[in-house]
Amino acid sequence: MSKKNRLPHPKRKPGLAPGSLVIDPSWPKPAIRVIAYGPDKVEEKPIGNLTELNEYLGKWPVTWINVNGLGDESILRQLGSMFDLHLLALEDVVNLRQRSKVDDYETTLYTAMRMLSLNEERLSGEQVSFFLGKNFVLTFQEVEGDCLDPVRDRIRNHAGRIRGAGPDYLLYALIDAIVDAYFPVLEAYDLRLEELEDDVLGKPDNSTRNRLFNIKHDLTRLRRTLWPVREMTGALAHSESRLITESTLPYLRDCQDHAVQLLELAESYRETGSSLMDFYLSSISNRMNEIMKVLTIIATIFIPLTFIAGIYGMNFENMPELHVHNGYFIALGVMTVLGLAMFAWFVHKGWLSSPRRRKDP
Amino acid sequence: MSKKNRLPHPKRKPGLAPGSLVIDPSWPKPAIRVIAYGPDKVEEKPIGNLTELNEYLGKWPVTWINVNGLGDESILRQLGSMFDLHLLALEDVVNLRQRSKVDDYETTLYTAMRMLSLNEERLSGEQVSFFLGKNFVLTFQEVEGDCLDPVRDRIRNHAGRIRGAGPDYLLYALIDAIVDAYFPVLEAYDLRLEELEDDVLGKPDNSTRNRLFNIKHDLTRLRRTLWPVREMTGALAHSESRLITESTLPYLRDCQDHAVQLLELAESYRETGSSLMDFYLSSISNRMNEIMKVLTIIATIFIPLTFIAGIYGMNFENMPELHVHNGYFIALGVMTVLGLAMFAWFVHKGWLSSPRRRKDP
Amino acid sequence: MSKKNRLPHPKRKPGLAPGSLVIDPSWPKPAIRVIAYGPDKVEEKPIGNLTELNEYLGKWPVTWINVNGLGDESILRQLGSMFDLHLLALEDVVNLRQRSKVDDYETTLYTAMRMLSLNEERLSGEQVSFFLGKNFVLTFQEVEGDCLDPVRDRIRNHAGRIRGAGPDYLLYALIDAIVDAYFPVLEAYDLRLEELEDDVLGKPDNSTRNRLFNIKHDLTRLRRTLWPVREMTGALAHSESRLITESTLPYLRDCQDHAVQLLELAESYRETGSSLMDFYLSSISNRMNEIMKVLTIIATIFIPLTFIAGIYGMNFENMPELHVHNGYFIALGVMTVLGLAMFAWFVHKGWLSSPRRRKDP
Amino acid sequence: MSKKNRLPHPKRKPGLAPGSLVIDPSWPKPAIRVIAYGPDKVEEKPIGNLTELNEYLGKWPVTWINVNGLGDESILRQLGSMFDLHLLALEDVVNLRQRSKVDDYETTLYTAMRMLSLNEERLSGEQVSFFLGKNFVLTFQEVEGDCLDPVRDRIRNHAGRIRGAGPDYLLYALIDAIVDAYFPVLEAYDLRLEELEDDVLGKPDNSTRNRLFNIKHDLTRLRRTLWPVREMTGALAHSESRLITESTLPYLRDCQDHAVQLLELAESYRETGSSLMDFYLSSISNRMNEIMKVLTIIATIFIPLTFIAGIYGMNFENMPELHVHNGYFIALGVMTVLGLAMFAWFVHKGWLSSPRRRKDP
Amino acid sequence: MSKKNRLPHPKRKPGLAPGSLVIDPSWPKPAIRVIAYGPDKVEEKPIGNLTELNEYLGKWPVTWINVNGLGDESILRQLGSMFDLHLLALEDVVNLRQRSKVDDYETTLYTAMRMLSLNEERLSGEQVSFFLGKNFVLTFQEVEGDCLDPVRDRIRNHAGRIRGAGPDYLLYALIDAIVDAYFPVLEAYDLRLEELEDDVLGKPDNSTRNRLFNIKHDLTRLRRTLWPVREMTGALAHSESRLITESTLPYLRDCQDHAVQLLELAESYRETGSSLMDFYLSSISNRMNEIMKVLTIIATIFIPLTFIAGIYGMNFENMPELHVHNGYFIALGVMTVLGLAMFAWFVHKGWLSSPRRRKDP
Ligand SMILES: [Mg+2]
Ligand SMILES: [Mg+2]
Ligand SMILES: [Mg+2]
Ligand SMILES: [Mg+2]
Ligand SMILES: [Mg+2]
Ligand SMILES: [Mg+2]
Ligand SMILES: [Mg+2]
Ligand SMILES: [Mg+2]
Ligand SMILES: [Mg+2]
Ligand SMILES: [Mg+2]
Ligand SMILES: [Mg+2]
Ligand SMILES: [Mg+2]
Ligand SMILES: [Mg+2]
Ligand SMILES: [Mg+2]
Ligand SMILES: [Mg+2]
Ligand SMILES: [Mg+2]
Ligand SMILES: [Mg+2]
Ligand SMILES: [Mg+2]
Ligand SMILES: [Mg+2]
Ligand SMILES: [Mg+2]
Ligand SMILES: [Mg+2]
Ligand SMILES: [Mg+2]
Ligand SMILES: [Mg+2]
Ligand SMILES: [Mg+2]
Ligand SMILES: [Mg+2]
Ligand SMILES: [Mg+2]
Ligand SMILES: [Mg+2]
Ligand SMILES: [Mg+2]
Ligand SMILES: [Mg+2]
Ligand SMILES: [Mg+2]
Ligand SMILES: [Mg+2]
Repeated sequence: MSKKNRLPHPKRKPGLAPGSLVIDPSWPKPAIRVIAYGPDKVEEKPIGNLTELNEYLGKWPVTWINVNGLGDESILRQLGSMFDLHLLALEDVVNLRQRSKVDDYETTLYTAMRMLSLNEERLSGEQVSFFLGKNFVLTFQEVEGDCLDPVRDRIRNHAGRIRGAGPDYLLYALIDAIVDAYFPVLEAYDLRLEELEDDVLGKPDNSTRNRLFNIKHDLTRLRRTLWPVREMTGALAHSESRLITESTLPYLRDCQDHAVQLLELAESYRETGSSLMDFYLSSISNRMNEIMKVLTIIATIFIPLTFIAGIYGMNFENMPELHVHNGYFIALGVMTVLGLAMFAWFVHKGWLSSPRRRKDP
Repeated sequence: MSKKNRLPHPKRKPGLAPGSLVIDPSWPKPAIRVIAYGPDKVEEKPIGNLTELNEYLGKWPVTWINVNGLGDESILRQLGSMFDLHLLALEDVVNLRQRSKVDDYETTLYTAMRMLSLNEERLSGEQVSFFLGKNFVLTFQEVEGDCLDPVRDRIRNHAGRIRGAGPDYLLYALIDAIVDAYFPVLEAYDLRLEELEDDVLGKPDNSTRNRLFNIKHDLTRLRRTLWPVREMTGALAHSESRLITESTLPYLRDCQDHAVQLLELAESYRETGSSLMDFYLSSISNRMNEIMKVLTIIATIFIPLTFIAGIYGMNFENMPELHVHNGYFIALGVMTVLGLAMFAWFVHKGWLSSPRRRKDP
Repeated sequence: MSKKNRLPHPKRKPGLAPGSLVIDPSWPKPAIRVIAYGPDKVEEKPIGNLTELNEYLGKWPVTWINVNGLGDESILRQLGSMFDLHLLALEDVVNLRQRSKVDDYETTLYTAMRMLSLNEERLSGEQVSFFLGKNFVLTFQEVEGDCLDPVRDRIRNHAGRIRGAGPDYLLYALIDAIVDAYFPVLEAYDLRLEELEDDVLGKPDNSTRNRLFNIKHDLTRLRRTLWPVREMTGALAHSESRLITESTLPYLRDCQDHAVQLLELAESYRETGSSLMDFYLSSISNRMNEIMKVLTIIATIFIPLTFIAGIYGMNFENMPELHVHNGYFIALGVMTVLGLAMFAWFVHKGWLSSPRRRKDP
Repeated sequence: MSKKNRLPHPKRKPGLAPGSLVIDPSWPKPAIRVIAYGPDKVEEKPIGNLTELNEYLGKWPVTWINVNGLGDESILRQLGSMFDLHLLALEDVVNLRQRSKVDDYETTLYTAMRMLSLNEERLSGEQVSFFLGKNFVLTFQEVEGDCLDPVRDRIRNHAGRIRGAGPDYLLYALIDAIVDAYFPVLEAYDLRLEELEDDVLGKPDNSTRNRLFNIKHDLTRLRRTLWPVREMTGALAHSESRLITESTLPYLRDCQDHAVQLLELAESYRETGSSLMDFYLSSISNRMNEIMKVLTIIATIFIPLTFIAGIYGMNFENMPELHVHNGYFIALGVMTVLGLAMFAWFVHKGWLSSPRRRKDP
Repeated sequence: MSKKNRLPHPKRKPGLAPGSLVIDPSWPKPAIRVIAYGPDKVEEKPIGNLTELNEYLGKWPVTWINVNGLGDESILRQLGSMFDLHLLALEDVVNLRQRSKVDDYETTLYTAMRMLSLNEERLSGEQVSFFLGKNFVLTFQEVEGDCLDPVRDRIRNHAGRIRGAGPDYLLYALIDAIVDAYFPVLEAYDLRLEELEDDVLGKPDNSTRNRLFNIKHDLTRLRRTLWPVREMTGALAHSESRLITESTLPYLRDCQDHAVQLLELAESYRETGSSLMDFYLSSISNRMNEIMKVLTIIATIFIPLTFIAGIYGMNFENMPELHVHNGYFIALGVMTVLGLAMFAWFVHKGWLSSPRRRKDP
């Protein structure tokens, strides 16, 4: 989305071996944090040394390892071998222009997704990667900060069924939290569209035009982001991976429902934007008509009158009218009548009643 | 649809646990009413206390429990556990922006739908949820008031096959009544389009433009509402749920037929609207042509004449023409001939015959 | 299609029981006529009393019962029970806005279709319903008059294979006759398009614009009518109903071929219409350019000259030029040179060679 | 395609029995020619009497019977019974508006196709029908002349694998030759588009506009012709008819490849055409801007100056400026300054630098 | 893509036997080079005589034979028989307008692809053909020079898993390198779009318009090139050929992912281009409005004033106002008031505040 708010994408040299991790030096270093839980207990801990993970993996019903920052190849590689991640999936983690997708690597299920948020009217996106394993979920984020705290709280507070469920339900809960966070973003665009509608129907100016083009552009991109999210949630909801249990499927279907709703909202906003644009463009044509009418009325009334005045401004010796006693007043009268006739003709043609004033009753 | 006529949608905080019921304090409290019937008898009763439902459930061939108003979480939760409703379905009941859909939860079949009506030229929509169970249909509405009275009457009067049929037929009858109620809505738009057509072909003004944009907008939204209704009725008509009996399927297919008809009507009205818009826009161009022709004719005739007058208005000492006895009249004659020649040229170019007057014979 | 030529559609009250027959009092009363035939004999008879049908049904290889007029509920209901028609199919017979479709009700196969014809340049449509049974075809039309006489003649004259074939072949023959009758309708539009093309390329006026919009509108509606005809013929051509024998399938496929051809013709005419519209609209822009060029040339040449004349029309006491002996002629000369220079500039810019005259060689 | 170059299509009376052969009296009479061949020998002969065909059929590995001209019903009927052709296929042979298609009639495989060629810049099309049987290929053309001579030469000269292969390979070779002949047609349009591009970017006039519309129209129709060719070749390449041997399938797939290429070329030319049209239309708007700028500059500079001249052309008795000694020169000076100021303002606004001259570096 | 940078396509005479190799005399002669490798060793060698290939084929785990230049039919034919290539595949190698595709010929798998690169802002494309066999990959290029050196280096340096894998992995690595090389091409267009955006929002001129049309055209063509690449990679990723091993499939799926990303980038750039074009076109309309406003303001203010001046420039004998002592100054006053009133009216209408200056805050 808005390029300014994104991490730099280092250029992948074409022809690199698959599994090459192309990492930009400016990316933050990984900060790892574990939440391990089961029905009865929960433990959270920041991880300094990767070997500490061995205390959790396989010893708790569910271990969630979250990695913020992708700026260290060796740590990523170690995580890759600890969790038996496919080289291609690891490459995708650092390739920040993935479409949302699900890849089934048998021992792990890889999911890529885009997390959206609004910063001062600017969209910013962040790629999140999920690995679902037998008893863990491993997540990778570009930078610190996410919309997953409600899930963390539900784990801590034993809220809902999350503590009693497996890692597949945790995966669902995380994806659901990200999908839910799209709604406020779309609502912000809804608001902007309503403001724009007022401007377009009121007194549009050039900033209106710019904002119309910007919002159309953003909504087109939003739709492009949401389209693969719908596919991805659908793929999960109909997944046949043995890592996803039957009882989690209705939750994933619900998530897909929301993705479809989001896509439809984006489509409908985009159409509203197009419709406003068309209205704006037809306003320009109307305004041109009005401008031309003013010019035509003035010119059509006064040009012939000026011609008459020009006639009697000629210096011929022999111009009998000039010597008629009331010639001047007769000429003024003729001009007045002519002018009024022209005016009446325009009134008759309906040019004088400005369309602006006729409002819908 | 028109936002003014809808209940407020409370914002769901992203990351809520699935099954959270987000209820707006302004929503009406639930009012529950039961109709239980079989081939031989029928009983109707408002329900004050939920335990009264036990007198009906399983003791009558079909029990229809209708709930008007969603403003009380505890009642919804109690109904949820009495009827064994899935948490996600219950959440959908209060999430008022569902697309029309069918979810099969084995013991119950959940259907969401939008009921439309026109209030003083404004569309208003209301979400209706249906749960079909072994011997009941449970319906939830946002507010009092619906289009289901004809079904209630058929039950009371033993009209048609409804009293002898099961709850799946009741579900069909309710959905069919809602689908049927879309037809008058679409017919109202057909009427408006005809009025607009008269305006566009007659004397269009700016209100025409506004109304064109509004009707296009509404029809786009109507199509967006009808699209999932078609899917939903199709899903029911081809459902493999054991809650739907073979003999009800042709009725559901008929319902799907009507949904398809509605969608095609909406599409065709939308195209008519677009076509009127294009006609309107081409009228603006035509009118501009006419305005410019008036200006050009007047200016082209009089500007050269005024120039000639200007010549003989110059004050040079030695201007022989001025002293020619009939110089003035010769000058007037030349100007008249020139003016008429210009006029003839415009007649020849066909600019004088207003296109407005040439009508289709 | 053109609403004026259609029977009134009585409004169905929403929520009616399925199978309700909503009949407009203005509809003609049913007139029934039977043609029974086999390889060796044929018999035709108008039917006054429905019991007369028992002399034919099951006693002849094929009995075709044609009903013109739907204005009597009791007769329709009697036919319904005699021929064991499903309530929903009977309802569809009187619901005059069916899309063309096939419904398989096991004992009978219901087909709905729209018969088109042109009356004085106006399209009129009529819904025809077919029931195919074991040894009969039952057809319902809105009013007297159809395009099925060639089929009747083939039965009477033992032409082609119709007399030796079963009721499924009769169904094919009837549908084929209706599909064939679309071709002259489309050809009429082809002719109108050619006339319009001449007008658009020649001297378009406002009636051209109206006719362009009308023809585009009609062709859009034609396509909308033909689309389900294609589906319907396809459904028959691939039907697995036991009422349709193997040997009839190639004939139904041929019929589907024709429906596809018709749809493509309609599409191609619609595109031609759009293309003519675009050409017409670009003509308007071109004409505006021409108008503005005329205005600009005249104004640009004469406004500066008039200014010069104005200069020497000023009444300052001390204007030496006025007293130069040939001042007047010098001034005229300067103006001529200036005017010619302007003119030469416009010739140079190519504004003087009207684009109208450059024709394709 | 271009109607002038096609044989007349006699109107089929609606309701004709299937298998009716509607033949126009102006069509050429059939001229039949046989080529029979096997790996070792080849024989060619024009056929006067149909019984002569018995010397070839079944006695040679492959017999190709080509019929030029469809103007004799009895010969077509005799061929139909000799080769056991289905009535519907025979009807399609003379129905000259078939879409390209394949119909499998078990004993024979019927294929219809359109052969295209360019005559003096005009497209002409001819329908070719193929019947593939156990040991023969029977082809029907509208008129003498085709693009199949290279195939005849390959048979005569034992070039490639054709002499050793069966009739299915002959069918492939014939269809391939016709598909190949589309390429030069498309290339001719590519050339015309390039010429048009030069015109549009250079000095477009009204003939440019006509040619743009014509080429868009032709390319739309070409696409419409090629679309079913792709389907038809695909149907052959995946045919399960026992008349087509396994080893011929790769050749048919290659043919399908070419049809897809052709379709993509046509699409891409159509898009280029649309793009040129849009460019042309935006040129018109630009030119209008330029015209209006000229008018506005001239009028805005001289109208106020003329007003000033008009002031001092008034005949009031008491106008002190007129008597100032250098009044005239002061007035001229003021006008010059005012005119230059206006001019400078236009230069400042950038109206004076014609956009025409700024070229892409 | 850009035709100037491509090898000439010799015209195939329609009707040529399948397998005919149509070779342009200007094409470079084949230069052949072998790289044979296994886990432990690697050998590279240019091949002068085709028999030298026998030293490698079947004697090394993988042999990659690369042919640069297609200008010698006999060498191509010899390679065809050595590697048992199907005639049709060989024909495709020299037919330089293949869509990207995969053809499975059992013993070999043929893949065609387009390699893109940018030379001084111009796209150039080159067709590459791949044959995958049991123990070899045979590649054909139009000319010397490609983007495959990184793969050669990985083989030489034993980097990644390539040395230990089979020929199917080599095929993947080559296709992946070509797909990767599309990214820099697309990024170059992204840059150009950003420059264009600055121009369109800043001071657009006619070169802007040309560049907009060019970039839209290029992006349309890019999309057309990428579409079959997506299909082709998808076909490989889901191939059931026994030449592709299970373990290579995830790599091919990754390649397909990239093709999808590329297609989406191309689509999104194309939409940005369209959006810029629309913005540019609406700028033209706006500018026209501004021009017309200037003209109308000037003309509307001064034409009536000039008329008044004209009145008092008339030479009637009896014009009392002329003799009023302060008549001149009263007339000037009236004109000033009138002019200011007009001006005020324009200010009131908002015509004086140029829309250009109102920027988005
Ligand atoms: Mg990847
Ligand atoms: Mg983050
Ligand atoms: Mg909203
Ligand atoms: Mg809104
Ligand atoms: Mg929601
Ligand atoms: Mg638009
Ligand atoms: Mg326009
Ligand atoms: Mg939900
Ligand atoms: Mg309600
Ligand atoms: Mg209607
Ligand atoms: Mg209408
Ligand atoms: Mg209905
Ligand atoms: Mg439009
Ligand atoms: Mg029905
Ligand atoms: Mg009738
Ligand atoms: Mg025709
Ligand atoms: Mg035509
Ligand atoms: Mg036909
Ligand atoms: Mg249009
Ligand atoms: Mg046919
Ligand atoms: Mg021929
Ligand atoms: Mg080409
Ligand atoms: Mg080109
Ligand atoms: Mg080719
Ligand atoms: Mg257009
Ligand atoms: Mg090929
Ligand atoms: Mg190369
Ligand atoms: Mg980018
Ligand atoms: Mg951008
Ligand atoms: Mg990438
Ligand atoms: Mg456009």
